[in-house]
Amino acid sequence: MMAIETAMSSNDGSNHHLVHSDDPMHPANHICTLCAKFYTLGWVTGTGGGTSIRHGEHIYIAPSGVQKELMKPTDIFVMDFNNREYLRRPNVHKPSACTPLFLAAFTRGAGCCIHTHSQWAVLVTLLVERDFGKDACFEIEEIEQIKGIPKGRGKQGNLGYYDRLRIPIIENTAQEEDLTDSLEKAMEKYPDTYAVLVRRHGIYVWGDNVHKAKTQCESLDYIFQLAVEMKKLGLLWTNK
Amino acid sequence: MMAIETAMSSNDGSNHHLVHSDDPMHPANHICTLCAKFYTLGWVTGTGGGTSIRHGEHIYIAPSGVQKELMKPTDIFVMDFNNREYLRRPNVHKPSACTPLFLAAFTRGAGCCIHTHSQWAVLVTLLVERDFGKDACFEIEEIEQIKGIPKGRGKQGNLGYYDRLRIPIIENTAQEEDLTDSLEKAMEKYPDTYAVLVRRHGIYVWGDNVHKAKTQCESLDYIFQLAVEMKKLGLLWTNK
Amino acid sequence: MMAIETAMSSNDGSNHHLVHSDDPMHPANHICTLCAKFYTLGWVTGTGGGTSIRHGEHIYIAPSGVQKELMKPTDIFVMDFNNREYLRRPNVHKPSACTPLFLAAFTRGAGCCIHTHSQWAVLVTLLVERDFGKDACFEIEEIEQIKGIPKGRGKQGNLGYYDRLRIPIIENTAQEEDLTDSLEKAMEKYPDTYAVLVRRHGIYVWGDNVHKAKTQCESLDYIFQLAVEMKKLGLLWTNK
Amino acid sequence: MMAIETAMSSNDGSNHHLVHSDDPMHPANHICTLCAKFYTLGWVTGTGGGTSIRHGEHIYIAPSGVQKELMKPTDIFVMDFNNREYLRRPNVHKPSACTPLFLAAFTRGAGCCIHTHSQWAVLVTLLVERDFGKDACFEIEEIEQIKGIPKGRGKQGNLGYYDRLRIPIIENTAQEEDLTDSLEKAMEKYPDTYAVLVRRHGIYVWGDNVHKAKTQCESLDYIFQLAVEMKKLGLLWTNK
Repeated sequence: MMAIETAMSSNDGSNHHLVHSDDPMHPANHICTLCAKFYTLGWVTGTGGGTSIRHGEHIYIAPSGVQKELMKPTDIFVMDFNNREYLRRPNVHKPSACTPLFLAAFTRGAGCCIHTHSQWAVLVTLLVERDFGKDACFEIEEIEQIKGIPKGRGKQGNLGYYDRLRIPIIENTAQEEDLTDSLEKAMEKYPDTYAVLVRRHGIYVWGDNVHKAKTQCESLDYIFQLAVEMKKLGLLWTNK
Repeated sequence: MMAIETAMSSNDGSNHHLVHSDDPMHPANHICTLCAKFYTLGWVTGTGGGTSIRHGEHIYIAPSGVQKELMKPTDIFVMDFNNREYLRRPNVHKPSACTPLFLAAFTRGAGCCIHTHSQWAVLVTLLVERDFGKDACFEIEEIEQIKGIPKGRGKQGNLGYYDRLRIPIIENTAQEEDLTDSLEKAMEKYPDTYAVLVRRHGIYVWGDNVHKAKTQCESLDYIFQLAVEMKKLGLLWTNK
Repeated sequence: MMAIETAMSSNDGSNHHLVHSDDPMHPANHICTLCAKFYTLGWVTGTGGGTSIRHGEHIYIAPSGVQKELMKPTDIFVMDFNNREYLRRPNVHKPSACTPLFLAAFTRGAGCCIHTHSQWAVLVTLLVERDFGKDACFEIEEIEQIKGIPKGRGKQGNLGYYDRLRIPIIENTAQEEDLTDSLEKAMEKYPDTYAVLVRRHGIYVWGDNVHKAKTQCESLDYIFQLAVEMKKLGLLWTNK
Repeated sequence: MMAIETAMSSNDGSNHHLVHSDDPMHPANHICTLCAKFYTLGWVTGTGGGTSIRHGEHIYIAPSGVQKELMKPTDIFVMDFNNREYLRRPNVHKPSACTPLFLAAFTRGAGCCIHTHSQWAVLVTLLVERDFGKDACFEIEEIEQIKGIPKGRGKQGNLGYYDRLRIPIIENTAQEEDLTDSLEKAMEKYPDTYAVLVRRHGIYVWGDNVHKAKTQCESLDYIFQLAVEMKKLGLLWTNK
């Protein structure tokens, strides 16, 4: 957090050129179309959630407190990945409290990081706590959609149908920034994971690029929804 | 209600200029885009619900009995905040029965007030009555989305993760206008609340401006949906 | 049915002018926009359901077996209300098997009739049968949305909050046309109803005009969904 | 699989003309609009699922691993039906692992084949296994939407309301291609079926043409969703 605070006071430049592009795949445009889609999926209701893209040495970040489905490229913050200073800080917005958590993923090679408040994710964290205890991961197996999740950083290919999907869960904190420590610990303890659930809060998902982060986030959300419906119907997540 | 009846008979002017603007953020345009969005969220099905914006001394109000997703700026009523007379009353429509309830919020400093028939809100009022009694508020804690709700009028910032969210519930009445008394009593008893649930009916949510009213309404609806799903899964709303 | 069979053989004219209009409120255009909306509401999945509008002495009817969200004005059938002969019969389509049921509503003064396969409607018919028997109506009370339903033909105004909503249920038949008799009997036994549920099938809803039929259909579907969720949560539909 | 591997190595031509057309009903365009719609229905989340159309002796196939709602005609693979060689293989994509399963349907006269990961389909396969055993089909009767499913290849007309719908279920395999054998066995054992469920995975649905495959897929998904909700409410699928 220190680095961010410093950046906030040292740099107020607008650097409009960093967010102006006719290319819909430019990070400033892409974050906006992604967030509009995430809104319709129920992931970023009420200004919740966030999205960040790494583009070379620039980190593009959706601001805090904006209606995600209405976001414009000019709303986007841009940070220098190396010195963590803001190259662009729109005065009307506050930087996202997710920033240090996004950076934790970028430091480990991610190209895009998505944070959602998906209700399926929240319900799964509550069900795991009740049924398997506070230290348990979410675990499920033999669901085809598991094949949408890669094996892990530096490993080739995706999980197989018979692999067990394990998503670690960390406890929520009063301040989002304070999740950074436990998020990083979970990343170290589960080096193959591309996602960490946050109890009573939501999920952080990242990937090598936007395509992977977005489709992994969709696959996980599909699996969480299925898992909740399975619980309602008395069906088990694993064969044990 | 008296004031409204008087206004209805004393003023029939159309004052088209009050609802004509190229600015999508103009209240007459804004109410229409909001209501179209609320329709897709299931909040204003079958002409239910309503929305009102205060713009200086003018109150803009969606009419009664219209399909909310099809509303046009020319459908909008405009009332003078000070004398409660209609500055614009489209002849083809009836004024909203929610008007005195919207005014109760505006009198307490609100800039926008939203009324929905959200099924999650209705189900929550039924569950609270059955499980905690007729006098109980809806109460929940340790859900991240609670941080989307402000602490209260005149207070800085939003509720924290460890704060308990309390939304008062009033009993429904045969006529919507007759909710005004109990709504105002709830506003006085819970001066920090930005929302009041109406049993078997829906919710009134207000905020300092459109952005806040809309995002608070979304955050609350998210929490109500989560709370209903928690009940189905046997999960508790509070640690007690 | 006799009249329809006769019409089918005696009239093959296309009468394009009956379905060509620049006015989005023209019945041929209106049925298309309504059906596209109903598709997104899950009411007319897989070519199910149908919609018909009476326009003077002309009855406009969506055809059988078409993807409702893709319908074009040229797909629409037009029938003469008085002699039940088709003024327009697109050769590529089959007339809707709902036609005699729509006519039963038009004969009783309706201006628009909507048939949906809503799952909430189907589930409600199953729950009523199990919990209250084959002869029971669907009954619910003290839900605000009940006020979206009119008191009955020739009566002023809508149901009140304390009125009990009663929707009769008829048994399904192998052929849709064969529902006509029991639909008409239900209309006679419950002369105030604007809707009849069909067990394991869906619902027919009508109204004085398109606006009323559509908003009544929405209000009923809202109530059925709420009723199903209430059952899941162990909440009662009436105080008895 | 052998044939495909051979094709992959022997043909790298792009043959752009095969996927360029102004006609929205051209298979290359049609697959894209279908997949975008299927995304909103939750059938092809996270690059899951697939769609293929037979157009004369050409088979058009959506590629593997793409975001289905963003697909462009230039993403589409084209295969010669007779010699199973690719006439077009976009270098940036992998051919769909569903290809041999689509071919199994085309060999039996289908004009279009759709594969979804619908959660309702997955849940139904789990409920059938638990309640009726591994060898059981999904069976339901007396639901109007059953009439949306044809009687079988070479038979006239659709199932009737009193016909029992039976959809066979095959066990999932580690590799999608390895489903081909059991899919073909199910097709032979149930020659009238237009769909095969895959346990913990989804469904393959085919039809004589795009219209039929798409509407049959919708009708089945409607029935699966209804069946899951019936289970939650303790309602039976058949009278036995």
